[in-house]
Amino acid sequence: KILMATNSERKSAIINIAKKLSENFELIIEANKVDLNLAKENNLSNSLMDRLEINEQRLRDLIASVEEIANQPEVVGEILETTTRDDGLKISKQRVPIGVIGMIFESRPNVVIDCSCLAIKSGNCIILKGGKEAQNSNNILVETVREAIKEFIPINSVQLISSRDDVSELLKQNKYIDVIIPRGGENLINFVYKNSLIPVIAHFKGVCHIFIDECFEIQKAIDICVNAKTQRPGVCNAVETVLLHESISQENIEKLLTALANKNCELRICENTKSKIAKVKPATQEDWDTEYLDNILSLKTVKNIDEAISHIQKHGSHHTEAILSNNKENIQTFMNQVDASSIMINASTRFNDGGEYGLGAELGISTTKLHAYGPMGAKEMTTTRFIVEGQGHIRS
Amino acid sequence: KILMATNSERKSAIINIAKKLSENFELIIEANKVDLNLAKENNLSNSLMDRLEINEQRLRDLIASVEEIANQPEVVGEILETTTRDDGLKISKQRVPIGVIGMIFESRPNVVIDCSCLAIKSGNCIILKGGKEAQNSNNILVETVREAIKEFIPINSVQLISSRDDVSELLKQNKYIDVIIPRGGENLINFVYKNSLIPVIAHFKGVCHIFIDECFEIQKAIDICVNAKTQRPGVCNAVETVLLHESISQENIEKLLTALANKNCELRICENTKSKIAKVKPATQEDWDTEYLDNILSLKTVKNIDEAISHIQKHGSHHTEAILSNNKENIQTFMNQVDASSIMINASTRFNDGGEYGLGAELGISTTKLHAYGPMGAKEMTTTRFIVEGQGHIRS
Repeated sequence: KILMATNSERKSAIINIAKKLSENFELIIEANKVDLNLAKENNLSNSLMDRLEINEQRLRDLIASVEEIANQPEVVGEILETTTRDDGLKISKQRVPIGVIGMIFESRPNVVIDCSCLAIKSGNCIILKGGKEAQNSNNILVETVREAIKEFIPINSVQLISSRDDVSELLKQNKYIDVIIPRGGENLINFVYKNSLIPVIAHFKGVCHIFIDECFEIQKAIDICVNAKTQRPGVCNAVETVLLHESISQENIEKLLTALANKNCELRICENTKSKIAKVKPATQEDWDTEYLDNILSLKTVKNIDEAISHIQKHGSHHTEAILSNNKENIQTFMNQVDASSIMINASTRFNDGGEYGLGAELGISTTKLHAYGPMGAKEMTTTRFIVEGQGHIRS
Repeated sequence: KILMATNSERKSAIINIAKKLSENFELIIEANKVDLNLAKENNLSNSLMDRLEINEQRLRDLIASVEEIANQPEVVGEILETTTRDDGLKISKQRVPIGVIGMIFESRPNVVIDCSCLAIKSGNCIILKGGKEAQNSNNILVETVREAIKEFIPINSVQLISSRDDVSELLKQNKYIDVIIPRGGENLINFVYKNSLIPVIAHFKGVCHIFIDECFEIQKAIDICVNAKTQRPGVCNAVETVLLHESISQENIEKLLTALANKNCELRICENTKSKIAKVKPATQEDWDTEYLDNILSLKTVKNIDEAISHIQKHGSHHTEAILSNNKENIQTFMNQVDASSIMINASTRFNDGGEYGLGAELGISTTKLHAYGPMGAKEMTTTRFIVEGQGHIRS
């Protein structure tokens, strides 16, 4: 079961998924339009509509990413280390699939393709539970995948369950499912944690910070903040709060705020931050814990690095935390005291991404410190076991 | 917080624990006697009494293991890999502590020492929740540890909580505790899974099998089975069921059973296994799922390797599974289809152990496939994060 399909069978299955997606191109776009129309009737928010949509460009990108996964190096079966003891006992550590992955997700139907391919790549079976709002898209995509894989690997390696009350049942199947990965809003993730008897790897929210230390070049800081907030505001590695060292000059603060405002960024500032820009609003306590998923940024003035770190420890989400500084000691302090899956030094938070890190396609950024912390790709969907080879060895 | 104590501070703290344990030697033995006397009054089982006991030899061994942990290589802060991209962005993967570990355990007061030392070694804080039956022993041991560490690292790096209703509360503290490790019976572990909002790494039971294939040298098979069952029957990597290929001669079966019976092993055999040994009892359905933790062994005759594998898939516990065979194809089939933290080929199940694998002290054998699968030592109490260093880099 665990290592039944060969590497070449799995690779052929993934390549065939790309092929069948191309063949079903029109059908997929049509099915997605049905979901989009229903969503419009049900007044889904713009950001949910955006995640739900599979347009032609997105589908082409999806097919390209499937091909990329097929061509990534193999991760299954690899022997990571081998030692032979003095008594001749040979001990190896081998990378093996986890087994059966339960994926619970909302909106984004592309998850069906990304996660099926990563699961197959890593030798796992996957059970997908999508949201009702993407039902038609999910169905056609799963059918396409199953049709594509069946001549190479068991068709039931990929399964979709749909009805609403299945989730609680699913979370109790610890005999059959090895890990649950929820992807969606905080409510979904909290529900899963509360009800799952199966280990969970969560991709929680990203309340990411940038701390601008004193004496950091303002133009670099502006470029990084604008990139981290406005390049793609709806994603988890976008910055939500910028912490400003109090010694930064008012002139430089105005430059930063103007640059952001020019990118249509809504600015919410603390009572100690001053600005003449008309658009600026006062931040409330709630802002410090909010993942906007939108082109909104909060800014707070801090006395020093210690106050910045305290703020991050209190409000951060272990996702991505950045320091912009030329002071080596401060950088070290930040690294020692801030706990996040990625620490950015003088770089944009947007780099926390499997693709950017050269890890290949990912199924999300884990903020669970167990098993995977940061971008989670095919390798993170495996575990390791020991293979011990003797010639009649007994323990003394 | 995450990397506050230096390596040398942590090492000094652990060395000082060994020193203070020696200083408090008599006090510890006395406190343990109080627990043992109370346990006797409460009619605790012999196996629980055995786990509860800290005699002089065991305490000396414990002190030696503390010194061993202090001298093991450092695991914290290590940079595992670094790549510099063409644009100059430097991406490193760094081993860091998980954070705060919640350990819930029954009986064995030595867990206080083993796990405190492994936690300190790996830069974590640990909250220990022991059982009432070991209260006096746990208290003196934790006090010894805290007294020993306080001049090097924060005293609250190690904490003990005792009262009964604390467990449910503890399992909800997902803001403050990063992982829960239960060590104890199945009821405890199931309770933890059901109630924990925190990720769990479980050390479930070990229902370990040995499959003796046809044509394997009977004397080697006997030595391995006797070792795997009788060397230390009460531990999780002891064998519980031996699966016999039906072509093994009756003469060889009698030899195997006689050797086991001579070691006072109680034998329970399936209806298809025959024996003239007086002591042999028939096995019931329940036997196939039982971890005896005692000198009892069940034996079952199987038609072929496929039946052996089916039995293991149905009754195994992902702990340790052994095949004794000279047939390479069968060994490969076994490896491909059996899912366990250790696969033993022609060797005793008793080797599945951190010490035997050269990994150093361990806090148990994880049968959770997430994060750690197999012996779990200081390295498995860490995670990895990314450190990204730029010079004003933004994502394009």
